[in-house]
Amino acid sequence: MTVVTALGIDWGTSSFRAYRLDAEGGVLDVRRADAGIRAIDDGDFDGAFEQLVGDWLDAAPDAPVVLSGMIGSRQGWLEAPYLACPAAVGDLAGAMAPLDLARGRRVYLAPGLSTRGASGVPDVMRGEEVQILGAVDRLGVERVTICLPGSHSKWVQVDDARVIGFATYMTGEAFEALRRHTILGRTIDHAAWDDPAFLAGVDRSGDDGGLLQHLFGVRAAGLFGELEPTTAGAFLSGLIIGHELRAATASHDGSVVYLIGEGGLVALYGQALRRIGVTSREGPPDAAARGLHLLAEHLREHHRS
Amino acid sequence: MTVVTALGIDWGTSSFRAYRLDAEGGVLDVRRADAGIRAIDDGDFDGAFEQLVGDWLDAAPDAPVVLSGMIGSRQGWLEAPYLACPAAVGDLAGAMAPLDLARGRRVYLAPGLSTRGASGVPDVMRGEEVQILGAVDRLGVERVTICLPGSHSKWVQVDDARVIGFATYMTGEAFEALRRHTILGRTIDHAAWDDPAFLAGVDRSGDDGGLLQHLFGVRAAGLFGELEPTTAGAFLSGLIIGHELRAATASHDGSVVYLIGEGGLVALYGQALRRIGVTSREGPPDAAARGLHLLAEHLREHHRS
Repeated sequence: MTVVTALGIDWGTSSFRAYRLDAEGGVLDVRRADAGIRAIDDGDFDGAFEQLVGDWLDAAPDAPVVLSGMIGSRQGWLEAPYLACPAAVGDLAGAMAPLDLARGRRVYLAPGLSTRGASGVPDVMRGEEVQILGAVDRLGVERVTICLPGSHSKWVQVDDARVIGFATYMTGEAFEALRRHTILGRTIDHAAWDDPAFLAGVDRSGDDGGLLQHLFGVRAAGLFGELEPTTAGAFLSGLIIGHELRAATASHDGSVVYLIGEGGLVALYGQALRRIGVTSREGPPDAAARGLHLLAEHLREHHRS
Repeated sequence: MTVVTALGIDWGTSSFRAYRLDAEGGVLDVRRADAGIRAIDDGDFDGAFEQLVGDWLDAAPDAPVVLSGMIGSRQGWLEAPYLACPAAVGDLAGAMAPLDLARGRRVYLAPGLSTRGASGVPDVMRGEEVQILGAVDRLGVERVTICLPGSHSKWVQVDDARVIGFATYMTGEAFEALRRHTILGRTIDHAAWDDPAFLAGVDRSGDDGGLLQHLFGVRAAGLFGELEPTTAGAFLSGLIIGHELRAATASHDGSVVYLIGEGGLVALYGQALRRIGVTSREGPPDAAARGLHLLAEHLREHHRS
């Protein structure tokens, strides 16, 4: 029987994922639950944690326990303050916030990362940094651009195996708000999808006029029968994702972009990037588990008595 | 007593405004109601119209009656199909759709306008065209750029007293959807306003990164205490309006932009335009009434038996 050497937990706003890890960072078990921090009643994270992985804690009494994601935010269990870029795995490990469970066991919450763009405006991530550093380790690269598509898509620059900066695009959340809460929703069949319409939306995002004008164009095209309810949603998706991709790759150096995230969305971003002439590849699937393993290794080497 | 020579009605999605006009287009009376076409039960526009201005119809049995706005759309009383640009007052008048009231009186619905941008994507307006041609007549200009800010802001090119083209930006509606239905809403005091924050948002819209990245920056600035609930809403407003203005004026020729619309919004757009170096002036306040008068004049000269 392989020994569990660490427990890693990726605990976000809407999902919970726990890993039992072996000495090489291999995943022995995964446990998923719809128990994101938003779903935890009365802030009883300790009780929820016992219910979710109490048996794993019992079975591996000496394994370091590392948590990442929104669980370490102000809305979570305990705030692990943002660490400013640039940051490597060791920096993250050193900035983890210790927390003692009611049962007496000490666990560690990973900090998020912060950065400031050229204009001085702040940006933040929390949870993705662990995936990124895990992916970088798995890929065996030192310098890479990584995109994590989603509600708040992240574009990340890694150099010398450190996160040196990143930018967040409110793509997925803007798409939801615009398709559900504007006049556009009236002429969209939300259950329908159409690949050519998605790519047409990506193409449209390259025209003059900006996103706000392009949005109204979706409405007008519907009035003229040039978009149907079955194609308008995919077109809108391609339009908004296209705006993200063009802004994010405006000064891209031509290297391969690695995409990390949920399969369907990664495939969609891959299509859209190809459409605008940027080469992408799917990142390693177990990036979060790998990153949690690296943090646990650091804990074992540097922090634990 | 001055004779009423025409009745003009600007009947939009959310508002109803009726004018009694004299021979020179002067406004003798205005009647406003919260009786936009969305508020009319069971599509009984005839009944609503009688209630709203039946007495005016009785009192001016020979006056032409002209309606403009969404009342002439597919969701309205009778569809007056879009007329393609370029279009002058005479073109609009010639394309009005006649409609016989239950009481036997014939009234006329103005068509909307359509155009296609450089990329071939359609655009439409309905109601604004009457305001625009009224404003052009009042201003005594032949060639001008007009902006009508709102949920769907219009930027309009007028040459030789004809609307030659326009572009619509989904600014107001996107602002509402984004501030009410994304994470941004949580940190915005919707009742608060702050002029410096509005202008800071306009400035921010000129940075690299695009709207989707700038939106997330509002969130991150909130986390770092660089925007407060009392300033974040005005900043977001400036940011989104700024994106519209920069796109709309990207190839502007430096002439004065005339702003037509509700006073508060016109003042705000004027501030934002000044901030990005574009001179604007408030358009004539009675543009809609003037445009309806011009249509009624054409009817009198060309169409009525």
